[in-house]
Amino acid sequence: MEKELEQYFDRLWPLCRSITGDGLRESLRILSEIVPLELHEVPSGTAVLDWEIPDEWWIKAGWIETPEGKKICNFSENNLHVVNYSEGVDKTVRFEELAQHLHHYADLPGAVPYITSYYKRRWGFCISKNEFDALPREGNYKVFIDAGHKKGSLTYGEAVLKGSSDREILFSTYVCHPSMANNELSGPLATAFLYKQIAAIKNRKYTYRFVFAPETIGVIAFLSRSGMHLREKLDAGYVLTCCGDKGSFTYKRSRKSPTRADRIAEHVLQYSTKAHEIINFAVGGSDERQYCSPGYSLPVGSLMRTPYKKYPEYHTSFDNKSVLSFSALAETVNLYYDIARALELDDRYQTTVPFGEPQLGKRGLYATEGDIVKLAGETRKLLHFISHADGETWLLDAAARFGCSITEFASVVQTCREHKLIRD
Amino acid sequence: MEKELEQYFDRLWPLCRSITGDGLRESLRILSEIVPLELHEVPSGTAVLDWEIPDEWWIKAGWIETPEGKKICNFSENNLHVVNYSEGVDKTVRFEELAQHLHHYADLPGAVPYITSYYKRRWGFCISKNEFDALPREGNYKVFIDAGHKKGSLTYGEAVLKGSSDREILFSTYVCHPSMANNELSGPLATAFLYKQIAAIKNRKYTYRFVFAPETIGVIAFLSRSGMHLREKLDAGYVLTCCGDKGSFTYKRSRKSPTRADRIAEHVLQYSTKAHEIINFAVGGSDERQYCSPGYSLPVGSLMRTPYKKYPEYHTSFDNKSVLSFSALAETVNLYYDIARALELDDRYQTTVPFGEPQLGKRGLYATEGDIVKLAGETRKLLHFISHADGETWLLDAAARFGCSITEFASVVQTCREHKLIRD
Amino acid sequence: MEKELEQYFDRLWPLCRSITGDGLRESLRILSEIVPLELHEVPSGTAVLDWEIPDEWWIKAGWIETPEGKKICNFSENNLHVVNYSEGVDKTVRFEELAQHLHHYADLPGAVPYITSYYKRRWGFCISKNEFDALPREGNYKVFIDAGHKKGSLTYGEAVLKGSSDREILFSTYVCHPSMANNELSGPLATAFLYKQIAAIKNRKYTYRFVFAPETIGVIAFLSRSGMHLREKLDAGYVLTCCGDKGSFTYKRSRKSPTRADRIAEHVLQYSTKAHEIINFAVGGSDERQYCSPGYSLPVGSLMRTPYKKYPEYHTSFDNKSVLSFSALAETVNLYYDIARALELDDRYQTTVPFGEPQLGKRGLYATEGDIVKLAGETRKLLHFISHADGETWLLDAAARFGCSITEFASVVQTCREHKLIRD
Repeated sequence: MEKELEQYFDRLWPLCRSITGDGLRESLRILSEIVPLELHEVPSGTAVLDWEIPDEWWIKAGWIETPEGKKICNFSENNLHVVNYSEGVDKTVRFEELAQHLHHYADLPGAVPYITSYYKRRWGFCISKNEFDALPREGNYKVFIDAGHKKGSLTYGEAVLKGSSDREILFSTYVCHPSMANNELSGPLATAFLYKQIAAIKNRKYTYRFVFAPETIGVIAFLSRSGMHLREKLDAGYVLTCCGDKGSFTYKRSRKSPTRADRIAEHVLQYSTKAHEIINFAVGGSDERQYCSPGYSLPVGSLMRTPYKKYPEYHTSFDNKSVLSFSALAETVNLYYDIARALELDDRYQTTVPFGEPQLGKRGLYATEGDIVKLAGETRKLLHFISHADGETWLLDAAARFGCSITEFASVVQTCREHKLIRD
Repeated sequence: MEKELEQYFDRLWPLCRSITGDGLRESLRILSEIVPLELHEVPSGTAVLDWEIPDEWWIKAGWIETPEGKKICNFSENNLHVVNYSEGVDKTVRFEELAQHLHHYADLPGAVPYITSYYKRRWGFCISKNEFDALPREGNYKVFIDAGHKKGSLTYGEAVLKGSSDREILFSTYVCHPSMANNELSGPLATAFLYKQIAAIKNRKYTYRFVFAPETIGVIAFLSRSGMHLREKLDAGYVLTCCGDKGSFTYKRSRKSPTRADRIAEHVLQYSTKAHEIINFAVGGSDERQYCSPGYSLPVGSLMRTPYKKYPEYHTSFDNKSVLSFSALAETVNLYYDIARALELDDRYQTTVPFGEPQLGKRGLYATEGDIVKLAGETRKLLHFISHADGETWLLDAAARFGCSITEFASVVQTCREHKLIRD
Repeated sequence: MEKELEQYFDRLWPLCRSITGDGLRESLRILSEIVPLELHEVPSGTAVLDWEIPDEWWIKAGWIETPEGKKICNFSENNLHVVNYSEGVDKTVRFEELAQHLHHYADLPGAVPYITSYYKRRWGFCISKNEFDALPREGNYKVFIDAGHKKGSLTYGEAVLKGSSDREILFSTYVCHPSMANNELSGPLATAFLYKQIAAIKNRKYTYRFVFAPETIGVIAFLSRSGMHLREKLDAGYVLTCCGDKGSFTYKRSRKSPTRADRIAEHVLQYSTKAHEIINFAVGGSDERQYCSPGYSLPVGSLMRTPYKKYPEYHTSFDNKSVLSFSALAETVNLYYDIARALELDDRYQTTVPFGEPQLGKRGLYATEGDIVKLAGETRKLLHFISHADGETWLLDAAARFGCSITEFASVVQTCREHKLIRD
């Protein structure tokens, strides 16, 4: 998986994504090679919940020419150099005026910061603090941005894997940041590859929904169409972001914790024995803000590695490939896959032999000769499972009481199903 | 406030209060200068719950003349010298008989103890252990108490501050101890000054009831009239006692903890960063015994400084002005005021924008230029507030989840109200 | 009690018990001298829940003659030497064949292990590892077991002590192991002597049921008859096993913990100040597996000393009288008796004076002279009791809040009953 992840990363990296536009569309098209996305176009001006879809943004070029005739802040070299959603501009200005349109970031003087201005029209460039400090204060600067806004649409992608039940699991990720690696490309990549793994699960119980949308406004657009459906059908959901750095895991709980999403994710993390931290819901985050808003109040958490704002390169040009580990990214995908397996397995099973314990001997499931050797692990697990198959207890809780991961009960559930020791 | 507190203290100190009588009435009259008390007179013999209002007690003088002709235990010097509710007496006795009517306190040999005998007629004096030990064992003692009982009434005072709602908050204190400072004068003083502060709150939501009654029997009389009303209307209540010593705070929970009273008081204490201890309900206390009795089971706790029985001077002549700090007493009043403010603010708010987060930009509540600078504290607080304004979550809990006192949300609530982001 | 316990132990020890047969019947007959057991015979072949009553086993003799003519594994010397439920055999075999029918236990090389084969017909002997290793590998062995199976019945015993209520408490123990001391004889002995103590309680509230049955199949037979009755009537139950060793106590919770059984047992243990451990329900145990099976889900736990499998001598010939302490066994009986006393006392009492506290003075229950002496312990306990007699709070919880065992409230409950301060 790692090799493939890297190849897709390299293809997606140079595109200038935004909350609308062709960079976004091309990114979704490339991701469609992995996950068959249905693309939705929401026209500019459409009211979506408390918001409105903005005009579509296009950009072709952007640069500054210094008084010495040097071209800097060239969009073609790094798409972070132009403020995302900037207006076009073509004029000559003095440093004083220019400075009001330049953004830099003192905490990381070598990095170009990532700046957006979606809802107020302005033009601007982003520049490293070091480069900014070296600019001549005298002379004329030529500023040029070939960009603009037009009526168009916002695009988001969606894929659904049907299961035997119409109860749903959601995996949501955002696609709107230009060239940045952990936040954001790790998210769409992990989600796409997770799709492949879940598609391979046989006899899926759950229906899985995968959403690739611009952050905030894209998810608001998605919710304005599908939010009520989710409120009725969703059992658990997760926002995938910051999935690929080398740090340990962080799980951020849903607002109405403990939801099913939380209980499953925390169980899987606990028994994964991987280093991790659990944090409570807070609004300073990503699209869980929308999913957990009071009207929907969905059971949506977020399993990350190092969260946004917790690593210094966040929202700068330094959040690049060097921040990532593709094996760490693959590990995140696998952990999400374990969550899906746990969700598939977790249920309130009901035994067909509720009164007294089942006689395993006559079913060939028990040593016929009782002796002082301790009951074999698998038999103990089976009896434990049956003993808790009371139609009320979630297997997750029964497994925790046994002291192991729910996924270790898969074979026991299978055996009991074959011997008709549990109801369908 | 401290100067005023001290002035009232000095005026109230010398009066000989008891559970009935003119000392009690005069004390309530002085307190009426601060809080407009309605005075209730409950006639002797009236059945109140399981009890009966006793005859009214009067006292004019009391002393012992020793065999050497020295006047000791003089009521006019310290009203603790005569057992509260003592019968009158005027006779000559030998030491052996006298000793059966003398009370002293070995643990604090220099102090005159405080003794009462409300429900059994007897006469008696209180004397320090040191003075007792020095009494001649031979010769005649003259004992004189000019006191007695008569049909009359028990007096208690009550004041109500109406709010927009008929839901109530109760502050109850007792007035029946003669010259003692922390237990009891700190209680009525704090309650009276708290009244002034709460009266100044604009647009009060709650109706506040202030009760000044003799301990036990007075509160029982009050409850026999108003208990059922409180059972229906009371949201939280507190017994004010031991409010003025120099120790740290103790909050005693209501019997059915956690009640609203407990949750608010513990929250306020926690975020006050003042040293404090939380203790569970127990019957060895004050009037919370009556309020929390099973039939009413009211949400009434007690925020004190050093509780009764926990400081050595308790119930002796040593519980005098030197035990008090008027700035500590003012601090207690302010903490109770914070409790009232927290109660006013605490609610299950409901946002008018429940689906997705509100677009703050179009309301002028958000920076239009998203950048790497962290979301400003006030905006984060506002989004956190809206995110929990689901009509179910108490603001108290949302504030605790944010990690600060509910009172720090006052301006955010105000802003949201102005922008119609919450329902009325 | 200790002397008597030892006498009965000595009489029960040599009998060869099994899940059916005359050794079992004779054991129940001897126990009937202490507890008047009603004996139930369940015929071979009867379907009981998911199981079937097996044929009855009989055995008269068993031994091996070595090539040197030495008689070993003699059933008449130690009934563990023949596999319990072994078929008869009478032939001459080589060592290789014999070895397949010999059971030994490497962890305890000097001990004869305890082996059963109830549901598969085979013959076999049990031998210490040391003796096994010393057997000649050459020459002929004569093996002889005079045993067999026949249509008959499984026997279990039951005794009921009626109380004023038809709500029930269950004490269940098993009788099916041959000569072993802590597991099992300590169990039936403790249960029988507990019966005597409970029979002496006057005015019992609860109905007590005592069950002496073969482990697993015997309790399954009992449940097939009485399980639905218990599901309706049982308030708490306990499995008595491993009651007599010198170790500290272990309480194993019921599956649906916290049940009434758990809460009472843990409370009694806590305030007993005896060293103890609390463990959760797990299937690797005894008859609580049946009682807690999902269909019945009874509130049945198990208070033991050192549990099965936790002491090295378990299920071997070394689990003999030397493992026991009869004073420890008596202590276990007394602790179970305390549980019964706690159950009798625990209730949701309702005071007849719910509004305000009762005036104890007029009932002669209070010092008439209030003074600085702390409220006497018994009066405080009484007021605490009344204060929690709200018809909702269990006395168990009120006692814990007071910081003492529920059994210390016995006299206060009695006093309140006499003074009609609580409803009947």
